Amino acid sequence: MKTNPGRFFEEYRLGETIVHAVPRTVSGGERALYHALYPARGALYSSDEFARDCGLSAAPIDDLAAFHLVFGKTVPDISLNAVANLGYAEGRWHLPVFAGDTLRAESTVIGLKENSNGKSGVVYVRTRGLNQRGEVVLSYVRWVMVRKGDLNAPAPEPVVPDLVQVVAAADLPIPAGLDFTGYDFTLAGEAHRWGDYAVGEQIDHVDGVTIEEAEHMLATRLWQNTAKVHFDATFREDGRRLIYGGHIISMARALSFNGLANAQMIVALNAGAHANPCFSGDTVKAWSEVLDKAPTAAPGVGAIRLRTVAVKQGAAPFALKEAGGKYLPEVLLDLDYWALMPL
Amino acid sequence: MKTNPGRFFEEYRLGETIVHAVPRTVSGGERALYHALYPARGALYSSDEFARDCGLSAAPIDDLAAFHLVFGKTVPDISLNAVANLGYAEGRWHLPVFAGDTLRAESTVIGLKENSNGKSGVVYVRTRGLNQRGEVVLSYVRWVMVRKGDLNAPAPEPVVPDLVQVVAAADLPIPAGLDFTGYDFTLAGEAHRWGDYAVGEQIDHVDGVTIEEAEHMLATRLWQNTAKVHFDATFREDGRRLIYGGHIISMARALSFNGLANAQMIVALNAGAHANPCFSGDTVKAWSEVLDKAPTAAPGVGAIRLRTVAVKQGAAPFALKEAGGKYLPEVLLDLDYWALMPL
Amino acid sequence: MKTNPGRFFEEYRLGETIVHAVPRTVSGGERALYHALYPARGALYSSDEFARDCGLSAAPIDDLAAFHLVFGKTVPDISLNAVANLGYAEGRWHLPVFAGDTLRAESTVIGLKENSNGKSGVVYVRTRGLNQRGEVVLSYVRWVMVRKGDLNAPAPEPVVPDLVQVVAAADLPIPAGLDFTGYDFTLAGEAHRWGDYAVGEQIDHVDGVTIEEAEHMLATRLWQNTAKVHFDATFREDGRRLIYGGHIISMARALSFNGLANAQMIVALNAGAHANPCFSGDTVKAWSEVLDKAPTAAPGVGAIRLRTVAVKQGAAPFALKEAGGKYLPEVLLDLDYWALMPL
Repeated sequence: MKTNPGRFFEEYRLGETIVHAVPRTVSGGERALYHALYPARGALYSSDEFARDCGLSAAPIDDLAAFHLVFGKTVPDISLNAVANLGYAEGRWHLPVFAGDTLRAESTVIGLKENSNGKSGVVYVRTRGLNQRGEVVLSYVRWVMVRKGDLNAPAPEPVVPDLVQVVAAADLPIPAGLDFTGYDFTLAGEAHRWGDYAVGEQIDHVDGVTIEEAEHMLATRLWQNTAKVHFDATFREDGRRLIYGGHIISMARALSFNGLANAQMIVALNAGAHANPCFSGDTVKAWSEVLDKAPTAAPGVGAIRLRTVAVKQGAAPFALKEAGGKYLPEVLLDLDYWALMPL
Repeated sequence: MKTNPGRFFEEYRLGETIVHAVPRTVSGGERALYHALYPARGALYSSDEFARDCGLSAAPIDDLAAFHLVFGKTVPDISLNAVANLGYAEGRWHLPVFAGDTLRAESTVIGLKENSNGKSGVVYVRTRGLNQRGEVVLSYVRWVMVRKGDLNAPAPEPVVPDLVQVVAAADLPIPAGLDFTGYDFTLAGEAHRWGDYAVGEQIDHVDGVTIEEAEHMLATRLWQNTAKVHFDATFREDGRRLIYGGHIISMARALSFNGLANAQMIVALNAGAHANPCFSGDTVKAWSEVLDKAPTAAPGVGAIRLRTVAVKQGAAPFALKEAGGKYLPEVLLDLDYWALMPL
Repeated sequence: MKTNPGRFFEEYRLGETIVHAVPRTVSGGERALYHALYPARGALYSSDEFARDCGLSAAPIDDLAAFHLVFGKTVPDISLNAVANLGYAEGRWHLPVFAGDTLRAESTVIGLKENSNGKSGVVYVRTRGLNQRGEVVLSYVRWVMVRKGDLNAPAPEPVVPDLVQVVAAADLPIPAGLDFTGYDFTLAGEAHRWGDYAVGEQIDHVDGVTIEEAEHMLATRLWQNTAKVHFDATFREDGRRLIYGGHIISMARALSFNGLANAQMIVALNAGAHANPCFSGDTVKAWSEVLDKAPTAAPGVGAIRLRTVAVKQGAAPFALKEAGGKYLPEVLLDLDYWALMPL
């Protein structure tokens, strides 16, 4: 057979590194499309001039665009037969990605655990995105539940990696040259600086966006994500196309501008849960909570740890989970990350 | 509160200048998207070679894309609490915008007049779009009706600016170096030159485009316009998303290619009315009328003043207003502008 | 009348060359949009680095994007009054198109034959796409059935050009410098090389994409194709917008990545039939058949002749025509082309 059947659980080997296909050169085209797909307004990603005033050579591609591009490459090898995308950890954006850069990706299997039903198992991979110079621009751990192809295949020795719950502030990658001492809060869009946010503070980002089929498919294709369930209305029994979880991540992040305009750069992903599926016609809103704060070594730059939650129509303010600990049905995404903010 | 509540009428001060946030660097990406969103075919904006043959350094970003980018930046400060966008005047495109340019915007309050009901007032602003060199690329006056936040706030001294009805031909900005003496009418798409148009002539642009939700949202986000009413289907009681008026401006202008292919550059906006709202599913058509003509100092370049009217399905040919002076319900837009055309 | 009525059958003259309007400079924006509109994953078109490793200067714009851009320019002159697009032949991609290139197009009338009903006729044109250096980047023959405007116009002397059924392997244009000896099959996404494909082999490309109105309109506008029937829901009696046939060509080609990832460059189009119309909501799938194989003079490069068939929901595997020779109603496209593949 010439087509890619995807890998089944029993085909992964602990320690192996999978080189993912289809490197991608990014340009101003990807940047413009990102801004058309999401209400993204981070000044550092919108303006070369603003980025230069912050010590960078130009405005990078949005951090989450880099994430989606790397993630998309992994889909044919990691999650084509996935039952569920279970979690993320230890994500770090090591280098900004600029127009002209070419990204490729590779993943190392760092954990395997067959489920007790013998029909599937959990695969843990550490994925790295690399640029044309071979530099790691992004790395993260993801674990997915993958079907077994051969139910008689023996279960591997279970190995569950020891993952940090939160990337330590000392381990946050700070872009070389980043300097927020001359940061222009007016051009950035909000006056609130790092010192104005308190741990525990919650922010309702107010705005909402109703999602259309064409939009999430354009986005998901742009990242060369090949999962059938996003594109083919004949694939699910209910005839609905499941929206790529990354589309919700980007939508929530962009909506969070209103209240977090100065949380400019995402540098670490601590955890993420796609709590419930999202479909065309849903209206996405977002709220955030400040989980932690830390200084950094860069001039004028503080780190802020945020939980950003995407919800859909009908959600109660700041409501996240049921009494039993399950996510409420209106919650779409629960994302825990570190961003950099001017002091 | 960390989120932007927008300004209310009583918060504007006559003479103050508001610096708008989120500068934007444009690239070939914005140009390509503009051509995907609208049936734009102006050769000078489509081809670097054609633009060079007309004396420019490269094809600029479409004039209306520059307008939308500047306009979008003003929304969070000017029209977030607007009841209605009442009018435009004295618009001038001072310089073409090229890929690589970074645009920012600022607005000066030039008029204030509280409504007799005491619940809202009209704010007049002169907005300037500036490039990375601080040069004004675009300026225009806009007036909007804005709600009062505090109904007890005292009414300001009413000041209504004295605006010209039509930008005088002598005041039209002509791009440095523009020369239409070697203009290639074949490559431009039509043979009709400046001398072929008569004042009073009406042109039915024939073509129609049915608008989809995804398209107008992609466009409106691309210009970083944050008005909720365009994106959130839960915002209006009828569950419909109002299409950004600028989307209709660009659609009408692009449709006008068929009959006005050589009206290459928009250099002035005399007036504009968003006569009726437009919603997804409407089919937009356009017609134009030649309002005036004038020579310019540039070689081979004439100026033509046009009214371009966007209508939706069901409109009668060239019908604009009811006997009482009110726009007919099928009329979406009435735009009065100057364009440059080869002699 | 200032608007373009299109040409009618009696207005074409054998041997005349029509210069088409609106040249277009392409950028990374067109490339990014192509990747958002289609699930295109050809590594040579996605990555500048991969393209350089294959001997090119950078990743070209997708071959079919170049085709659509050239085709779009011909629509106002060739097919505005077309009843049907009947066929393609002798298509050759002479040169890759890169970001920064400006494309224009011209067509020579090489055949004319009035239909026996006296109401229409078939026009055969050889179209050339040229870059800013006047080099032919693409040429192909297309024939369309065009209405007569004046039914009393005399029928021209019938001339039907003698077209080759298949571009001979010796006539395939091979890009200068192309070298697949160091081809990276892992980064390309599949291990199957030229030697792994057998003439007669059929491949079901498995994946499907459900098409939305916004997507095909964005695409068709991007190519500046002005045919009303794609955009205006009030144009057809059934209120449906016909999807541009080229959208299906690109969709099928992109879907064929899964099984033909190494069929990197399209260099010749032998034939193409838009078998049935496609509408929004249809789910497009594709299958291919290997029709022929040939060596080339370029190092490591083989040529493979493929039939790629686009079908919609309900199609039986590899079913093409009814017993009578008519295409089955689920078949949308039957495309016969040569591609280049690593040995």
